[in-house]
Amino acid sequence: MTTAKWIWRLLLLNILLVLGAVAAEPTRGYHREICQYRKGKLIQPMSLYHSRLLALREQMQIRASLQGPEIYGYILPSTDEHLNQEVAARDQRLHYLTGYTGVRAFAAITHHGAAMWLEKRYAQQADGELDCDWEIYLANGNVSIADWLGSRVHLDKRVGADPHLVPHYLWAQWERELEDKFLKLVKVNNNLVDLIWGAERPEQPKNQVIQVQAREFAGENWQDKIRELRRRLAHLGCDAMVVTSLTEIAYLLNIRGTDIPYTPVVKSYAIVSQDDIFFYVDHGKISLGIDLHLRTDCYNEDCVKIKEYHQIWSDIRTYAQIWKRVLVSAPCVQDLGTSEAIYSSMPGQIVVEYISPIIFMRAQKNSDEQAGMRKAHIRDGAAICESMSNMEARFQTEQWTEEKIKYEVELWRLSQKHAKGLSLRTVVAYGEHSALPYYISSNVTNIEVSDQSLLVIESGGQYLEGTTDVSRTFIFGEPTHDMKKAYTSVLAGILHLAQLKFPADLKPSEVDALVRSMVWKDMTDYPQATGHGIGAYGAVEEPPISVAYGKNSSFHFKQGYFFSSESGYYKRDDFGVRLKNVLEVVDTGHRHPSGAHFLAFQDVTLVPYEPKLIDSTLLSAVEKRLLNDYNAKIRDEIGNELKRLGNMRAFYWMMNKTRHIREYLPEDEYRSAIEGSSLNSQPLIPLILLLILAAILPAWS
Amino acid sequence: MTTAKWIWRLLLLNILLVLGAVAAEPTRGYHREICQYRKGKLIQPMSLYHSRLLALREQMQIRASLQGPEIYGYILPSTDEHLNQEVAARDQRLHYLTGYTGVRAFAAITHHGAAMWLEKRYAQQADGELDCDWEIYLANGNVSIADWLGSRVHLDKRVGADPHLVPHYLWAQWERELEDKFLKLVKVNNNLVDLIWGAERPEQPKNQVIQVQAREFAGENWQDKIRELRRRLAHLGCDAMVVTSLTEIAYLLNIRGTDIPYTPVVKSYAIVSQDDIFFYVDHGKISLGIDLHLRTDCYNEDCVKIKEYHQIWSDIRTYAQIWKRVLVSAPCVQDLGTSEAIYSSMPGQIVVEYISPIIFMRAQKNSDEQAGMRKAHIRDGAAICESMSNMEARFQTEQWTEEKIKYEVELWRLSQKHAKGLSLRTVVAYGEHSALPYYISSNVTNIEVSDQSLLVIESGGQYLEGTTDVSRTFIFGEPTHDMKKAYTSVLAGILHLAQLKFPADLKPSEVDALVRSMVWKDMTDYPQATGHGIGAYGAVEEPPISVAYGKNSSFHFKQGYFFSSESGYYKRDDFGVRLKNVLEVVDTGHRHPSGAHFLAFQDVTLVPYEPKLIDSTLLSAVEKRLLNDYNAKIRDEIGNELKRLGNMRAFYWMMNKTRHIREYLPEDEYRSAIEGSSLNSQPLIPLILLLILAAILPAWS
Repeated sequence: MTTAKWIWRLLLLNILLVLGAVAAEPTRGYHREICQYRKGKLIQPMSLYHSRLLALREQMQIRASLQGPEIYGYILPSTDEHLNQEVAARDQRLHYLTGYTGVRAFAAITHHGAAMWLEKRYAQQADGELDCDWEIYLANGNVSIADWLGSRVHLDKRVGADPHLVPHYLWAQWERELEDKFLKLVKVNNNLVDLIWGAERPEQPKNQVIQVQAREFAGENWQDKIRELRRRLAHLGCDAMVVTSLTEIAYLLNIRGTDIPYTPVVKSYAIVSQDDIFFYVDHGKISLGIDLHLRTDCYNEDCVKIKEYHQIWSDIRTYAQIWKRVLVSAPCVQDLGTSEAIYSSMPGQIVVEYISPIIFMRAQKNSDEQAGMRKAHIRDGAAICESMSNMEARFQTEQWTEEKIKYEVELWRLSQKHAKGLSLRTVVAYGEHSALPYYISSNVTNIEVSDQSLLVIESGGQYLEGTTDVSRTFIFGEPTHDMKKAYTSVLAGILHLAQLKFPADLKPSEVDALVRSMVWKDMTDYPQATGHGIGAYGAVEEPPISVAYGKNSSFHFKQGYFFSSESGYYKRDDFGVRLKNVLEVVDTGHRHPSGAHFLAFQDVTLVPYEPKLIDSTLLSAVEKRLLNDYNAKIRDEIGNELKRLGNMRAFYWMMNKTRHIREYLPEDEYRSAIEGSSLNSQPLIPLILLLILAAILPAWS
Repeated sequence: MTTAKWIWRLLLLNILLVLGAVAAEPTRGYHREICQYRKGKLIQPMSLYHSRLLALREQMQIRASLQGPEIYGYILPSTDEHLNQEVAARDQRLHYLTGYTGVRAFAAITHHGAAMWLEKRYAQQADGELDCDWEIYLANGNVSIADWLGSRVHLDKRVGADPHLVPHYLWAQWERELEDKFLKLVKVNNNLVDLIWGAERPEQPKNQVIQVQAREFAGENWQDKIRELRRRLAHLGCDAMVVTSLTEIAYLLNIRGTDIPYTPVVKSYAIVSQDDIFFYVDHGKISLGIDLHLRTDCYNEDCVKIKEYHQIWSDIRTYAQIWKRVLVSAPCVQDLGTSEAIYSSMPGQIVVEYISPIIFMRAQKNSDEQAGMRKAHIRDGAAICESMSNMEARFQTEQWTEEKIKYEVELWRLSQKHAKGLSLRTVVAYGEHSALPYYISSNVTNIEVSDQSLLVIESGGQYLEGTTDVSRTFIFGEPTHDMKKAYTSVLAGILHLAQLKFPADLKPSEVDALVRSMVWKDMTDYPQATGHGIGAYGAVEEPPISVAYGKNSSFHFKQGYFFSSESGYYKRDDFGVRLKNVLEVVDTGHRHPSGAHFLAFQDVTLVPYEPKLIDSTLLSAVEKRLLNDYNAKIRDEIGNELKRLGNMRAFYWMMNKTRHIREYLPEDEYRSAIEGSSLNSQPLIPLILLLILAAILPAWS
């Protein structure tokens, strides 16, 4: 055998070994370039968050002396006790520990590692916010929390988590997964972050008295809602229900508050049984008005008994001895259901985990709520016309940034009648930022807005009458052909959905393709769901409606439901388009041959589209008619509102944006129009030509 | 108390009693007017079917002496041992007993009653065919077979059925439901209808030798298919599979036959284990060619052992002692799975009921099959052009009826190269018949076809290369506005689906709204599914694809799948429109941001639409472009075929039907066209006006 052959063989072996090593390397999380760069350096930046991490690890060990053996891993979700995604400052434990400002994340900490699981859309943001102690993994990626802990914690060790912050279904799942890794999940009732947070932790805000949602807005007495709930509970054979969702309590008792951002709710629990209504809340939030509203002075089953917030835990244990079957919420679309702490505070055999009946009562808005939603959207539409017209007028003379526009939009919205706040983090994204799904501008990312590219504004408001959620895309200069094409595709999808008539047994997921097929044409897509339910002065995302293909869902549209219809187009590093309207489900009064009702949608959001971005040659005559009808409705409704407000600049801005678009003239109509010599804009050209000819011809003769 | 008060009370009591009686009356089946009319008459028509019913009842009693106690009820399905819907003459037991010529029905007989369950679409037909012994109920109505038997048979009595004809899942369901009514379902292995049928029963047709499906059409050796099946069985941990579906056997062994109508299959069973392939079939059907094809001369695992058809029953019992796990087919979309007889012939613990892996192997056509399907559709398209052009030429000089047209269409189709038969009952429905879904013309219902209304033709053929399925709607005179509108809506849905690009994780049920939304606009709908899979020289309805909203389905489109895309419009007592094309699923080569493949559809059916029925003002420019592209493809592919056939009449007919439709000229293009003075058809009018003016003007001067 020659040497050459040997060298070849060695080379081959080496390649195989290297390939093997690469394949064997454990799957890594999100690649963090900055940490890769710092790895070799001697001096590492020392951050506040590093010391907090060390303090947490200390707590993990200290716990050994307090509650059994120490824990070797700790899992911390971003949610609060009521499983909200957006939480009060006091509950931003994950932010305190890590500096991460996004939502929907989980941290896992061991003595030598720390990692965070979050959705892909937040990965970039987290990479900028987390220091290099933290690995980043994608939720639904190929490394689960249990995988990660399994490879870092020795067999048979304990992993802790706060059961108050974890939904029951997820706790059960973690328990199973960790068991497969020979680890044990234990309940750590004192939150470890709270222990290290100490005096720095923000206080419960004072003087946040509960507001009564008046009968004229709620459309129904809370007593009637309780009665309906009791009927449904009896139907399910349940004695009582523990209501932990803040939006459900707010709906049920016709109360609102300011305890968490963007959603007007009161941090509280409620227990509704056939004989009692208990309401657990900080006594500081109770006013005389609330006492009267909730009828706390009497002692029958239609009177609310107010108790201190934390008393729920002892009460639940007491009543669990009386109740035979208690309903606790199962997860439903965006709702995470009940926390493990609530679930496990009762004996398993009496707990019935079922989708909360309140979800369905609430989703079907009553006629006052329907009218309120429409009214709120008119004010909200006016607010956007006011802010955009104001901005356009000042655009050339001032310097504009994303943050400044955000401030403007929020200011105008909050100055409307009955405006109570924002319903979501306002997104103002310009240029290549608009091509980032879920981009949230901040002082760090803030850029100047010029007239070169697209500006996406996603925002919503809370009004006494209802909640709004709207996205629009603007341009101050002249759009490119690509921009117009993208915008028109997105618009066509929105128009198609809004005009749909359908039998009531159609599933929401089955309408998604109507919207998406318009952007699928270009082999692109948007990552968000096409639609979600929306509350009436409640949460901006409300179950049970979710318009998202590929997902199994067993809920249907019903008359009186409100939901969002959204589409988008993302051209990476260039521009993005987003449009979102709120639609109302109405009954056409007709029946499908199968007997099902024929339902239809109706636009509730009334905000002009950007005519400069519409390529009308890409729309069908029918689509243009829909667009003209929509514009006519805006001119009517928003026009009246703007005139009432006396803002004529906004009025003319709106009138300009909603000008009639010429629909297609069919050939025969066109011929007859010409032959009838009517002076439409279309036949003007031949007429002008005629006149020119008429001027020239006499010269010939 | 006054007398008046008493009278009032009595009256009220009476009303309540009457109301109570009405409510208590058992729910009735389909109202049979003719039987209502005959009820009072002394003389009733005595039919052949009445005596057969009496003979069957006799058998139900005789059985007492043969196999345990007598049975008080008997259930008879319309399917055969292989659970086919369309069955051989010899297996049309339900037809023999009742005279019913439809499919998908069940009869239940007691000593004093008889009833039939069928789908709504067959109700009218059955009402005409069944004599008044029979009640008619709707499948999925509010009276189930068990309900009916429960109210007519005494407690603890036995109800019988032939387990060979009933799918396992349905048998289990009946068993449960009858148990709830305290009745017992027993297996009656000798079919009672066969016993009374006796010598009249059609013989097994002789000389129906099995045909080999050549490699050039099948695209794959049966050995490779067996190998793939074995791999999948091993993956499922199964030693063997009992294949009872005739289409699966035909696909698997590359054989075809003529044993049942419309589907080219061989009545047989197969058992595939890791070591053996058994093929159970009448020896009379075996030729030398088949022996060679199936390699019956050798003794390894790649050789087929042919056994007599009925030997499956003893073999299955023998092998069940060796096998540890045996796969039998679970129901899947149109497929009913395995019969109770097969299922119960093995011990329960070794039977694995799972969707047949052959379904997924077969659905994804290989490249030869794909090419074959396209080729078959070209011939089929040519056949329709030939028949329609021939008919149009003779339309004014001859009298036409539905049956005559059916004969014409079938004749031309069967005269094509490699044509092997029809793939479904040809539907020719004129005028108000076209407004009946699933109308099948017969000598009784046959009407004259004139030029006043719409003519729907639904048909399909079997070719060596593939199976076709196409619906078209024609008119010989001038359509009304309503007809054009309906036709254009249906066409728009078909065009929309054909141009869809979509990520592979979209479910078939989620594209349905794209087609139906076009007819939902008018608050109408069609009862059939929008789409179903189709075989290659196989069944015209093939699992797993079903495009039908509201149904849960876990299957997805894959590259190489073929399926139908169908839409319809039914205006009761007036006219109906139906269009159906076969589409092929192709991979675009692009990826969705989620990583899924972007798939697209491609029209395989190439048959002209009726331009007279298209209202082009209702179509968008994009839709018209799609239509023009489709027409261009027809002119190219079908044009070549018709020229090859030398049928110039059909060629010109086709060229006339596929003329280019003018797409919309966008305004700027239009202006530049005018200004450039190009002589398009559009700017001709102003030019003509100009010339007229030019002629008049000099007179002025």
